[in-house]
Amino acid sequence: MRLRKKPWVAEALTGFSNIVLQNPNEDLKGKWAEVFGNDLPLHVELGTGRGKFIAGMSELYQGQLNFAGIEAQQDVLYYAAQKVQDRELPNVRLLVFDANEILTIFAPGEIDRLYVNFCDPWPKNRHAKRRLTHVNFLEKYRTVLKPGGQLWFKTDNQPLFEFSLEQFQEFGLKLDNISYDLHNSGFAPNVMTEYETKFSTLGQPIYRCEITF
Amino acid sequence: MRLRKKPWVAEALTGFSNIVLQNPNEDLKGKWAEVFGNDLPLHVELGTGRGKFIAGMSELYQGQLNFAGIEAQQDVLYYAAQKVQDRELPNVRLLVFDANEILTIFAPGEIDRLYVNFCDPWPKNRHAKRRLTHVNFLEKYRTVLKPGGQLWFKTDNQPLFEFSLEQFQEFGLKLDNISYDLHNSGFAPNVMTEYETKFSTLGQPIYRCEITF
Repeated sequence: MRLRKKPWVAEALTGFSNIVLQNPNEDLKGKWAEVFGNDLPLHVELGTGRGKFIAGMSELYQGQLNFAGIEAQQDVLYYAAQKVQDRELPNVRLLVFDANEILTIFAPGEIDRLYVNFCDPWPKNRHAKRRLTHVNFLEKYRTVLKPGGQLWFKTDNQPLFEFSLEQFQEFGLKLDNISYDLHNSGFAPNVMTEYETKFSTLGQPIYRCEITF
Repeated sequence: MRLRKKPWVAEALTGFSNIVLQNPNEDLKGKWAEVFGNDLPLHVELGTGRGKFIAGMSELYQGQLNFAGIEAQQDVLYYAAQKVQDRELPNVRLLVFDANEILTIFAPGEIDRLYVNFCDPWPKNRHAKRRLTHVNFLEKYRTVLKPGGQLWFKTDNQPLFEFSLEQFQEFGLKLDNISYDLHNSGFAPNVMTEYETKFSTLGQPIYRCEITF
């Protein structure tokens, strides 16, 4: 999502000191249980955007799961931080961070589940490596996920979905619950993203699958 | 919840013509599948209030379940209607209606599950019959629920919870998943009400159980 740059956001984000981790770096690696003050399973969303999904999930699974939301664009993360603050959710932290660099901030096997929701499809072939389901990313996910950990992936973009399925298979990963029409698949509970809410009401089918590492 | 009467609400509610059922009466009885245009299971919340719970549930279970929300006070139902409209949820209907009269609008066995969330505890003994878990209400619930249908009950009021457990047992109902601290019980997903969000952040434990008819 591309937005007009809001110059006040960097400053505003420092106001969410318990929610938005400032200057995320390698000090976090292996320390996520300390960040939350408990050792509940850690679920991480790559590309948190305005935070509807992560706020919904962390509310539903309060006391059961911890959530970290990673977003490269600080402007949209401001809205996510606002949602987390409004609902007083203790089990979620947000970071302005580049998903390419996740090996810097997560120790091997530290994450129980990853979510990639409606990531940028990067339609041009020459940008394929930027897609969050490219094998180069899968390599990193395999490191930070526990053995048997999962990636839950959804998108409304059919070419991206097909590309992703190929990448998962090329990487020898186990696929489950593949759906070409999530909202009519019987899958529940389904926490929707902002984007998903908008596009599904236009009749656009949502694609989804679970990948086990 | 008692609020200052808002004279514009009755008028405003007519604006939500696809969401708020106007003049609910016995024409609805046995016709809920027609209202929704499908025969998905019907879940009914008694005392919908500002609608955080029913909006959250119907979003999570879109395509899987239908929801009806009943609320005696039209002023608070306005906020519920707004939430349902904002999220464009197709699987929920709201009614200004008295829970005492549910036999008028639901046919025997038409409901799969009932929810009673943080109902008025009516602390005085002479008002016990107004509590939504009084045996007089259980009698009605037994009629409108399918055989094997459930009531999911939660409250922050310990005397009400104890009274309710007695009523369920007196009525010979099966109790499951009784929790005296829902948010630390491992139960998930837990969609919270407005009231629950507020009181649980103050450290108040939430009581919950499931009752099978």
